[in-house]
Amino acid sequence: MAAWGERLAGVRGVLLDISGVLYDGGEGGGAPIVGSVEALARLKRSQLKVRFCTNESQKSRGDLVGMLRRLGFDISEGEVTAPAPATCLILKERGLRPHLLIHDGVRSEFDQIDTSNPNCVVIADAGEGFSYQNMNKAFQVLMELENPVLFSLGKGRYYKETSGLMLDVGPYTKALEYACGIEAEVVGKPSPEFFKSALREMRVEAHQAIMIGDDIVGDVSGAQRCGMRALQVRTGKFRPSDEHHPEVKADGYVDNLAEAVDLLLQHADK
Amino acid sequence: MAAWGERLAGVRGVLLDISGVLYDGGEGGGAPIVGSVEALARLKRSQLKVRFCTNESQKSRGDLVGMLRRLGFDISEGEVTAPAPATCLILKERGLRPHLLIHDGVRSEFDQIDTSNPNCVVIADAGEGFSYQNMNKAFQVLMELENPVLFSLGKGRYYKETSGLMLDVGPYTKALEYACGIEAEVVGKPSPEFFKSALREMRVEAHQAIMIGDDIVGDVSGAQRCGMRALQVRTGKFRPSDEHHPEVKADGYVDNLAEAVDLLLQHADK
Repeated sequence: MAAWGERLAGVRGVLLDISGVLYDGGEGGGAPIVGSVEALARLKRSQLKVRFCTNESQKSRGDLVGMLRRLGFDISEGEVTAPAPATCLILKERGLRPHLLIHDGVRSEFDQIDTSNPNCVVIADAGEGFSYQNMNKAFQVLMELENPVLFSLGKGRYYKETSGLMLDVGPYTKALEYACGIEAEVVGKPSPEFFKSALREMRVEAHQAIMIGDDIVGDVSGAQRCGMRALQVRTGKFRPSDEHHPEVKADGYVDNLAEAVDLLLQHADK
Repeated sequence: MAAWGERLAGVRGVLLDISGVLYDGGEGGGAPIVGSVEALARLKRSQLKVRFCTNESQKSRGDLVGMLRRLGFDISEGEVTAPAPATCLILKERGLRPHLLIHDGVRSEFDQIDTSNPNCVVIADAGEGFSYQNMNKAFQVLMELENPVLFSLGKGRYYKETSGLMLDVGPYTKALEYACGIEAEVVGKPSPEFFKSALREMRVEAHQAIMIGDDIVGDVSGAQRCGMRALQVRTGKFRPSDEHHPEVKADGYVDNLAEAVDLLLQHADK
């Protein structure tokens, strides 16, 4: 593999995944990953542009940012690209009224959306809300539509909490796709539209941007397919087998965000 | 399409699906489909061999048969091919100890199975048992195995109860497959092994047998791929679009079991 100087040359903007990179979720709000609070502070003092690109769909952006600030992170709501606000834009553009299969924590993001007489379904990481009854209700709504439309806020397979691996929204989206014989429209990583909107908001071209994430598919492969570079951290849901993934090769593997920031400050934008 | 006499010539054995053909499940045990009790009685008085081939995995065979007998059907436990007993045979043959994600109603079928220190997962139609917590536990068991093995009792998409369409086990199996990056071993229709065991138990060759079911994929396509003929009834989960399925064409479509039995008694084994 080329030297780091070559791999990071010309980087001007950094997209950061949140869960598994900054912190691991869990009981009582979760815990920062060692070194990440300080690493983010150093990154933000540098010349590099920084933006957060998350598939978090259990919490509103406000609640997510509040929680991260309490953990010590320097982050504000305007710096976060998240799937719920992106979905609301699409619903309004297309005049769609969703049935919401979502976590109560993110419901406030949909306050301005008409949910009467639904003509589509929005599924997000509902956690314990993924009861049989709630899944069956979403299924029945879809089956009653002539052209069933399903939006999935991300399609992650699982994430890591302090207590262990947890099913994300993706498996439940697959369940509804199979039950109804349809394919969901994904809003969130690895959808190219979602990465592109984060790049626009950061005002950096894809070839000048690098994604840092713990998900070899959602973060690394997704960003690379948009023309960005991508580093995988060995924290969060990282598994050693990711470094030998049959189809995806990150531009680099680092132990954690702190190591990524060390390398970026040394080599980027040179 | 050829005349019924030609299509049914040489039939000596009839495999009957249960849910959606004999009865529709639902509150209070469900209700017989009009004409089915009497049609089954006529069929059993004929020269034709009869066996039941079901993916029912919420109830033990004993409970299922008891419920059907109370509804007036002439059926005994030994006449039913069902996925739970077939799964127990496989588990014993391969020395596997399952974690069970199943309905309490079918748990007695697994009484003789060692479930300590599990090295595989068995998923069946758990109904309300498909809570987030139970799904996540099955997921975590699979992720801790070096070679994760998942058995799915059928892979049906949904079934019809008197109150409406209900998610079956298939969507939840898809969810675990996606979360773990694996493929389940299906025990039940449309697995060829399952149809073949039903034919062996009925002692009829495939080309002399006909399947009667409400599921264009699980019943009709599955049976045809084993060399049987298959009729689809317009009851249960049948939808008008099934008659124009892009890949599957039944050997005949009938309004209900009563019409199928009329035709069989007139034309079969001639």
